[in-house]
Amino acid sequence: MSGNTFNDVFRITTFGESHGVAVGCVLDGCPAGLELTEEDIQLELDKRKPGQSDVSTPRDESDTVEILSGVFEGKTTGTPIAMVVRNKDQNSKDYSNVKDLFRPGHADFGFDTKFGHRDYRGGGRASGRETAARVMAGAIALKVLDREGIEVHAYTKSINEVESVAVDFDAIEKNEVRTCDASKADEMIALILEKKEAKDSVGGVIECQALGLPAGLGSPVFDKIEARLSHALMSIGAVKGFEIGSGFAASRMLGSEHNDNITALKDGRLEFEYNHSGGTLGGMTTGAPLVLRAAIKPTSSIEQEQTGVDRDGHLQQFVLEGRHDPCIVPRAVPVIRSMVALVLVDELLKQKTCSLD
Amino acid sequence: MSGNTFNDVFRITTFGESHGVAVGCVLDGCPAGLELTEEDIQLELDKRKPGQSDVSTPRDESDTVEILSGVFEGKTTGTPIAMVVRNKDQNSKDYSNVKDLFRPGHADFGFDTKFGHRDYRGGGRASGRETAARVMAGAIALKVLDREGIEVHAYTKSINEVESVAVDFDAIEKNEVRTCDASKADEMIALILEKKEAKDSVGGVIECQALGLPAGLGSPVFDKIEARLSHALMSIGAVKGFEIGSGFAASRMLGSEHNDNITALKDGRLEFEYNHSGGTLGGMTTGAPLVLRAAIKPTSSIEQEQTGVDRDGHLQQFVLEGRHDPCIVPRAVPVIRSMVALVLVDELLKQKTCSLD
Amino acid sequence: MSGNTFNDVFRITTFGESHGVAVGCVLDGCPAGLELTEEDIQLELDKRKPGQSDVSTPRDESDTVEILSGVFEGKTTGTPIAMVVRNKDQNSKDYSNVKDLFRPGHADFGFDTKFGHRDYRGGGRASGRETAARVMAGAIALKVLDREGIEVHAYTKSINEVESVAVDFDAIEKNEVRTCDASKADEMIALILEKKEAKDSVGGVIECQALGLPAGLGSPVFDKIEARLSHALMSIGAVKGFEIGSGFAASRMLGSEHNDNITALKDGRLEFEYNHSGGTLGGMTTGAPLVLRAAIKPTSSIEQEQTGVDRDGHLQQFVLEGRHDPCIVPRAVPVIRSMVALVLVDELLKQKTCSLD
Amino acid sequence: MSGNTFNDVFRITTFGESHGVAVGCVLDGCPAGLELTEEDIQLELDKRKPGQSDVSTPRDESDTVEILSGVFEGKTTGTPIAMVVRNKDQNSKDYSNVKDLFRPGHADFGFDTKFGHRDYRGGGRASGRETAARVMAGAIALKVLDREGIEVHAYTKSINEVESVAVDFDAIEKNEVRTCDASKADEMIALILEKKEAKDSVGGVIECQALGLPAGLGSPVFDKIEARLSHALMSIGAVKGFEIGSGFAASRMLGSEHNDNITALKDGRLEFEYNHSGGTLGGMTTGAPLVLRAAIKPTSSIEQEQTGVDRDGHLQQFVLEGRHDPCIVPRAVPVIRSMVALVLVDELLKQKTCSLD
Repeated sequence: MSGNTFNDVFRITTFGESHGVAVGCVLDGCPAGLELTEEDIQLELDKRKPGQSDVSTPRDESDTVEILSGVFEGKTTGTPIAMVVRNKDQNSKDYSNVKDLFRPGHADFGFDTKFGHRDYRGGGRASGRETAARVMAGAIALKVLDREGIEVHAYTKSINEVESVAVDFDAIEKNEVRTCDASKADEMIALILEKKEAKDSVGGVIECQALGLPAGLGSPVFDKIEARLSHALMSIGAVKGFEIGSGFAASRMLGSEHNDNITALKDGRLEFEYNHSGGTLGGMTTGAPLVLRAAIKPTSSIEQEQTGVDRDGHLQQFVLEGRHDPCIVPRAVPVIRSMVALVLVDELLKQKTCSLD
Repeated sequence: MSGNTFNDVFRITTFGESHGVAVGCVLDGCPAGLELTEEDIQLELDKRKPGQSDVSTPRDESDTVEILSGVFEGKTTGTPIAMVVRNKDQNSKDYSNVKDLFRPGHADFGFDTKFGHRDYRGGGRASGRETAARVMAGAIALKVLDREGIEVHAYTKSINEVESVAVDFDAIEKNEVRTCDASKADEMIALILEKKEAKDSVGGVIECQALGLPAGLGSPVFDKIEARLSHALMSIGAVKGFEIGSGFAASRMLGSEHNDNITALKDGRLEFEYNHSGGTLGGMTTGAPLVLRAAIKPTSSIEQEQTGVDRDGHLQQFVLEGRHDPCIVPRAVPVIRSMVALVLVDELLKQKTCSLD
Repeated sequence: MSGNTFNDVFRITTFGESHGVAVGCVLDGCPAGLELTEEDIQLELDKRKPGQSDVSTPRDESDTVEILSGVFEGKTTGTPIAMVVRNKDQNSKDYSNVKDLFRPGHADFGFDTKFGHRDYRGGGRASGRETAARVMAGAIALKVLDREGIEVHAYTKSINEVESVAVDFDAIEKNEVRTCDASKADEMIALILEKKEAKDSVGGVIECQALGLPAGLGSPVFDKIEARLSHALMSIGAVKGFEIGSGFAASRMLGSEHNDNITALKDGRLEFEYNHSGGTLGGMTTGAPLVLRAAIKPTSSIEQEQTGVDRDGHLQQFVLEGRHDPCIVPRAVPVIRSMVALVLVDELLKQKTCSLD
Repeated sequence: MSGNTFNDVFRITTFGESHGVAVGCVLDGCPAGLELTEEDIQLELDKRKPGQSDVSTPRDESDTVEILSGVFEGKTTGTPIAMVVRNKDQNSKDYSNVKDLFRPGHADFGFDTKFGHRDYRGGGRASGRETAARVMAGAIALKVLDREGIEVHAYTKSINEVESVAVDFDAIEKNEVRTCDASKADEMIALILEKKEAKDSVGGVIECQALGLPAGLGSPVFDKIEARLSHALMSIGAVKGFEIGSGFAASRMLGSEHNDNITALKDGRLEFEYNHSGGTLGGMTTGAPLVLRAAIKPTSSIEQEQTGVDRDGHLQQFVLEGRHDPCIVPRAVPVIRSMVALVLVDELLKQKTCSLD
């Protein structure tokens, strides 16, 4: 109801404000017997942390995860896995200037209207820091998928107008913008730095592929796998659009172009001429690669003068000082990968309830 | 778990196959005291039915809804409202040729893999006919919204390359393609008929706006209102993409362009220079118009030779005969409007649990 | 949220008022491939119907079930199974005298307070007739359990002070009160008829056993199997108490008496000296017989003068005329059996999500 | 699905093992603006802690709660409230003797069958220590109820054969067994100490009353308020039975006795001659006092020789050494009160979704 829980079986509940005591999550429904250490989680968490390079914020948040429950002798027990990261700069700054200000691009007004009383420090619950909790659970999902022979790759498809062409999964973690096309990395980085210099920000598109999925995952009506994936990705702060397979381009194609001739049925999976459908038909996986994209808006926090409004309806000019990400795309890549992984494990587990055999 | 139920409070569960006894739904959680007749529902249902014009299938399905429960003396009672439409052509045709065939663009393979035993007649559960049940419930949602002073408008934004420019809500139900720009209707119709003649099909984009929403609807984390709306729309068969506000275009904008200066706080709602955010910030409504779009693929069922595969992995050439929609967009408009209305009523009701006052 | 849906995977949603158009349910999450006919359901439904014998109401409700969806060529398809029974006496009677009266033992006041507008005819949604829908779904659950080698037996343990001693499952359907002890049937029947003559009513205790369950069903914390079973049974109108195993007697036993020495571990199931725990430890089945009991209050509708109150707070003497059950226990037996079966199938299916192997 | 979450709106998710790092919970859906400090929670937690008196275990677990999120400037913010208590004796003892043993009265076998890998130290997840997390959330629920003018009282009704007669809420926290009848406290304590001396244990009955509830809470079908309350109480480890109002005694009453004449309708609440129904009719509150009881079994852990079985099916004699509670009833009282409070707040919040006014 309050929307802090996601998934049906492999359920994650996140908690925490950016400047409160801690952020964390409870992952319930993880099968028992999975080998798991804090290092497994730290590894993924470090991909999301600030201060990794020039293209992200210089803030230092060397988050260290602690597992509180659900793991015994190095393996999961099937009981809830609680994980936390303690916040460091709880009272580091004076936020009184934003206390009563509703800013464009920020969640201030919604929180205030909905709840009346909010933790306004550094975004509070609306801070991107909440996604750290998603990455913690995502790290476990990725381990489950790995055991099942399923790979999930997420990468920067474009930064503003700069588009990647090649798709090389090995390149992703080797460049600062996490693009799949190493030859475009420099151009993307240069663009970000240029806009950073101009106290501006840029957005981009993140693509994600899942390989090795069995056919039949998802369900035929309201919980089509693309519907659940779009829910998962659109729940990430800066995401403004979602596509699967041909996506918006499909609206401009003819049926004779879009229809994908089947080329084979192999190992229980369909193969297609083009995979326009992006790995799903009728809401269920075909076994072909799942291919989806999310549109990321340019960071709202920029050090330029903007117009907000106070509680009494008076317009206010303000400048957001601070160390902001000129482009959130590279740090959003592990978040998107985590969310996709969480949905996929959930569907794998739900799939088992379809028969009693 | 099986995904035939949607929403948390104002919950719809649909049932039925296209060639079974009936399709219908149970709507649970509708507040008591709402005036409701079968005519209210029939009115919306007729907008979705086939055979309305040359641009849709000539099949005749004059569906008549029957309310089985939950309404007494012309008003809802707060108990579940069950509604059914009986199917007419249960055994009208021989479907043995598709029984063992997996077709491109169709759900056959997913169903077969997931369930093993499926009703293959005319799409069965995967038929677009399932959306009739959504429109029945949507009609009730629209009545609730109307009482709250909230309007929901859905319309054809583009058919293939033909884009509407003007946005005139009054035009929508006055042209066969349900576009919001009367001046573009003829061009859209001509394009559809041309492709129909060529035994081909076209897609398009549907836009939806909701006006008069209070601020604060939705929630800050996994159930951001845009996440729930995208879930709702991506769960409709032919939808391949979803956008809110600036959508994919945001990925190519600068922060300084995308950031929307606030121009006023009036009657508890924010007003913006451009409303790039599409009526939501931080996952909650701002009170500005909610603006979203869905990409519709061209109809998969075309009367041209295509390649499928049978259960044993043998490729098969086939031609789908029958009376197909050359463009599903106009008939999808009321479905999208219904799904948006269902989410909005759910959020209005959930909103009430945020405080005890 | 509105409580018309039960279970997590094998989900039932019921609808309908006693004097509306129909009562029915949607069963979602039933595995595909189960052989199912309307006769299978009718058979169980007939055990609940009125007019079976002198000990129940003489009302004639020869309910005939119709399956609307989810079954194809005699087998379930994994899609929602909608089932309805049409009501016969929609407008048979004048109910204006109870329209504004709140009666002891009846749901009138709660409905009125909660919803404001209610179908007051013959109990409306609160009528025992709603349980017909539970029995329809229960019939399917029993078929699933049968296929898994699991038996569920429910029977009258006592009628007022008359207690059964022997437990003979074969006796149950051979006597009008559905007791498991044939030698007590006459005494029970005589007691009911005596009180019926006196325009009074009696209650009793129903016991239920499930045999052949695998160990490990249920879960360790909030959804202990006994917690879910008690929820299921306490949701039946006349039930005032629930026990598992030793039940309330446990409160007067010593640990050394109550502790059940384990006598064997055979075929993956524990065996105990006494099975005081009733087949569950730590919220999960042990594989020993599941034994539970429900206390049924005497029927509230009796043809004696009682005191109610009207909407304005004026006390009113009234006599409920009509053909009431002098004892609802025999007709509640199949309802309790159905609810237990529904929980057990749900747990069997949920069990499968505990591992990926 | 995994049953570590309870309630629909005011949702609690617990985590933690008795000898892991911590136990705790996330409470989601708490309305914003409620004044809340760690002391509020500590106060309730201390009522459940071991070592309070001679009648409970001498183990020292001076649990200290820490709030990690959801509270800002002394008030709740409407976001998830995470709370933890760190465990002190993680590795204090050698548990290798119980590692492969399945004991009567314990959850060992269920966990092993269900999950394969379990934390066997001191009960692990099945330990009564999990209920500390329920009491943390319950403390918040009690604060919400207090603000609404609703009182919840839980107390020891009987210890073994010793029954309380008077019901004096003020007595409860003034005697070591938390009975409502001060005159019976000594006899109860003496009985417990006698059985403790004999290395045995005793059970009892806990009663709970809620006063000041509005009418109409709960819902008419599966989620009758008594069904949800029984679910809540039967989910506590040692509870073997549940009653509302007349409970099992109803099964031996006549309709003319059990039917409760209504004596008044005052301030929106019904008043009855006897309140046999225990405050609920048709699954919804009447406004009369809610009265329910739970049967608590004698503690399973006794220092006498018992028979268990090992993984290979070999019977094993063993003695459970350690500091066990000779009677868990007094410490279960705050747990039951917490669970009732959690359900009631949930229903209060859900109630608000019944209308849009």
